[in-house]
Amino acid sequence: MITLSSDFGSPYPAAMKGVLLERTDSRLVDVAHDFPRGDIRASAFWLREVLPYYPPATHLVVVDPGVGTDRHAIVVRAGDHVLVGPDNGVLLPVAQRLAGQGGDGHDGAFADALDVFRVDEDGLETPVPTGSESADGSTTFHGRDVFAPAAAAVESRRVSLDQLSWSSPLESPVEYRLPAAEVSDERVAGEVLVVDDFGNLITNVPGTVLEDVTEIVANGDRIPVGDAFATVHPGERVALVGSHGNVELDVNDGRGDDAFGLEAGDDVVLEWV
Amino acid sequence: MITLSSDFGSPYPAAMKGVLLERTDSRLVDVAHDFPRGDIRASAFWLREVLPYYPPATHLVVVDPGVGTDRHAIVVRAGDHVLVGPDNGVLLPVAQRLAGQGGDGHDGAFADALDVFRVDEDGLETPVPTGSESADGSTTFHGRDVFAPAAAAVESRRVSLDQLSWSSPLESPVEYRLPAAEVSDERVAGEVLVVDDFGNLITNVPGTVLEDVTEIVANGDRIPVGDAFATVHPGERVALVGSHGNVELDVNDGRGDDAFGLEAGDDVVLEWV
Amino acid sequence: MITLSSDFGSPYPAAMKGVLLERTDSRLVDVAHDFPRGDIRASAFWLREVLPYYPPATHLVVVDPGVGTDRHAIVVRAGDHVLVGPDNGVLLPVAQRLAGQGGDGHDGAFADALDVFRVDEDGLETPVPTGSESADGSTTFHGRDVFAPAAAAVESRRVSLDQLSWSSPLESPVEYRLPAAEVSDERVAGEVLVVDDFGNLITNVPGTVLEDVTEIVANGDRIPVGDAFATVHPGERVALVGSHGNVELDVNDGRGDDAFGLEAGDDVVLEWV
Repeated sequence: MITLSSDFGSPYPAAMKGVLLERTDSRLVDVAHDFPRGDIRASAFWLREVLPYYPPATHLVVVDPGVGTDRHAIVVRAGDHVLVGPDNGVLLPVAQRLAGQGGDGHDGAFADALDVFRVDEDGLETPVPTGSESADGSTTFHGRDVFAPAAAAVESRRVSLDQLSWSSPLESPVEYRLPAAEVSDERVAGEVLVVDDFGNLITNVPGTVLEDVTEIVANGDRIPVGDAFATVHPGERVALVGSHGNVELDVNDGRGDDAFGLEAGDDVVLEWV
Repeated sequence: MITLSSDFGSPYPAAMKGVLLERTDSRLVDVAHDFPRGDIRASAFWLREVLPYYPPATHLVVVDPGVGTDRHAIVVRAGDHVLVGPDNGVLLPVAQRLAGQGGDGHDGAFADALDVFRVDEDGLETPVPTGSESADGSTTFHGRDVFAPAAAAVESRRVSLDQLSWSSPLESPVEYRLPAAEVSDERVAGEVLVVDDFGNLITNVPGTVLEDVTEIVANGDRIPVGDAFATVHPGERVALVGSHGNVELDVNDGRGDDAFGLEAGDDVVLEWV
Repeated sequence: MITLSSDFGSPYPAAMKGVLLERTDSRLVDVAHDFPRGDIRASAFWLREVLPYYPPATHLVVVDPGVGTDRHAIVVRAGDHVLVGPDNGVLLPVAQRLAGQGGDGHDGAFADALDVFRVDEDGLETPVPTGSESADGSTTFHGRDVFAPAAAAVESRRVSLDQLSWSSPLESPVEYRLPAAEVSDERVAGEVLVVDDFGNLITNVPGTVLEDVTEIVANGDRIPVGDAFATVHPGERVALVGSHGNVELDVNDGRGDDAFGLEAGDDVVLEWV
């Protein structure tokens, strides 16, 4: 099974699928192709929250603002999963989670326990489209010309990552940690990690801070704490523990980002009433 | 085969797919994840018009504004198909159609002929993501934590819906009927059920009213009746029998909603010239 | 394997998938359903650039502004691939590429070397949805009622296209050529073929004109020529050879269409510095 995640929109993912299907009969599953463009933080968050629900798979991830520069393409072995993508940090939080290490990376060495391999692009067989006599690969679409061929190769021979002729161990991949909230007895200083399609503000504040709390002060406003969106009337604001275990600032039948006037990256300060 | 329909946008459906793939090898087919948010009417309409083209399947449907409240999760057996989703009426028009009962529900008992089961959520095995030690399930994402596990279980053992340890018959599911048009000799009083991505206004008026008619008065304006969009010149309005058998108010190479100034839910009165 | 491409948005493609799955067990792959509406040029371009990466397949394509008129439905045999769609030219550039003829059609007879068959719609078995007693087929949704049944039939019995009871050879399909750039020693006169989701302006100018060039004059402005988006600073304009081998006018971490003030169809004149 190969999952596909990118910020490509359409129709570029379809070219990647063609390359994969030319090389493997594996099942392909689209995770998302509308990650915020070039946004490592949002992409790393969604990958960490979604991919662990999958059975062991090869995960092809292309959020790659540095395409065509000298950044590496990497393959990461994380537990029974393998991730393929650019060496810009986007793979590491989910890789750590898949390897059973939490994925927060805030307690010491981060990538140390992961097996990371650098892809030697010259060693990969470049895809040649039907009707074309040659193809050299592009400098702008490594999803099609580098990552998809690497993912197909890895999917077919996953037992021997160490033996792949076109890869070599990489000791220091680019690290990336999702920002952590600071929790004290008086207040919690966090931020909005992502805004989902419903407009819910997903913060980096652990949901445990809402235990036994019926009301909280969020950026100065008193907000009811609920079990579900429908705890409050339509159009009203609510703080709750979202489906990822983090505090969310939401609106029942409305958009939290509009109601709170916040977007991804903005500070969120929670205080007890 | 499991089909997936929701108003989730992205990437939440990918988490549901992971849960399904962890539990079953069945084919997964996305129907749509952009149903109008929380809109029972539009979702019920599209499900009724699309799912009957499928071979026997398990249909996972999550349009669920009441998630986290005490609304039930249900499983509905309809002919050779099984539907899984919230007990808010969204499943019933398509279930009736799949059971060979028309799907309009305007002639007597609606859900009576369907087998409806209530899901005992505590009896379901909660999904545990790789790298996580525990998962209790969420109050905001039953698509992942309740409906997907139920759909996977039903898909695997469809012969024995009555025997499932985690379900029990539900006598009175929440009913929902798509609104019916009133047809008399002088006029037809209907409404716009949905606006499709082309801007076509799909009404609840049966297409038979356009038989042998070359022109019709729609909300006071004379509109040509055509066989196809291209019956009229680009930019011009046309009334025709759409692909669901209902009267549509459309524009050739343009948007009917803009040209008619109408949206979903608005009244449509048709009169003969 | 059947690929699906259309300008349908959602959820109409799901009805086509139901019809296909009712008739075949083949793998279905979505290429794109958001081609610019009714846009033959953009659709023909994307199909030509994406489908050749696929292994031999049946390609169902529905970009069909003339649905319901007397335009034909056609099946095209191109190398090991088969294409099914409307006879409006959209299939021909990719068919020519798949047949190993380049896909530009600027050097003589275009469709001559392709096997094109006209679909006799009355000979196709019309899809009948579960719960419905009859279906006559629509005049507005041939994707579901004509092209999908034809694609499923072709997919099942691809060896015998000539023997299909519901098809007959078509000698003169509607031709369509993507516009060619005029290259002289002083200047290149081309145009923007499509704007991709990133805002990149993909022109019809062959990338070879940028060989050994570090700067170019595009519509009067001097623009650096780069190897990758990141050749220039974020927000700056760059000309490069895109992943299709054509000249693109792009912005690193920004939108080329906004920065250049150009959209699909606009003229692009390149001059050497």
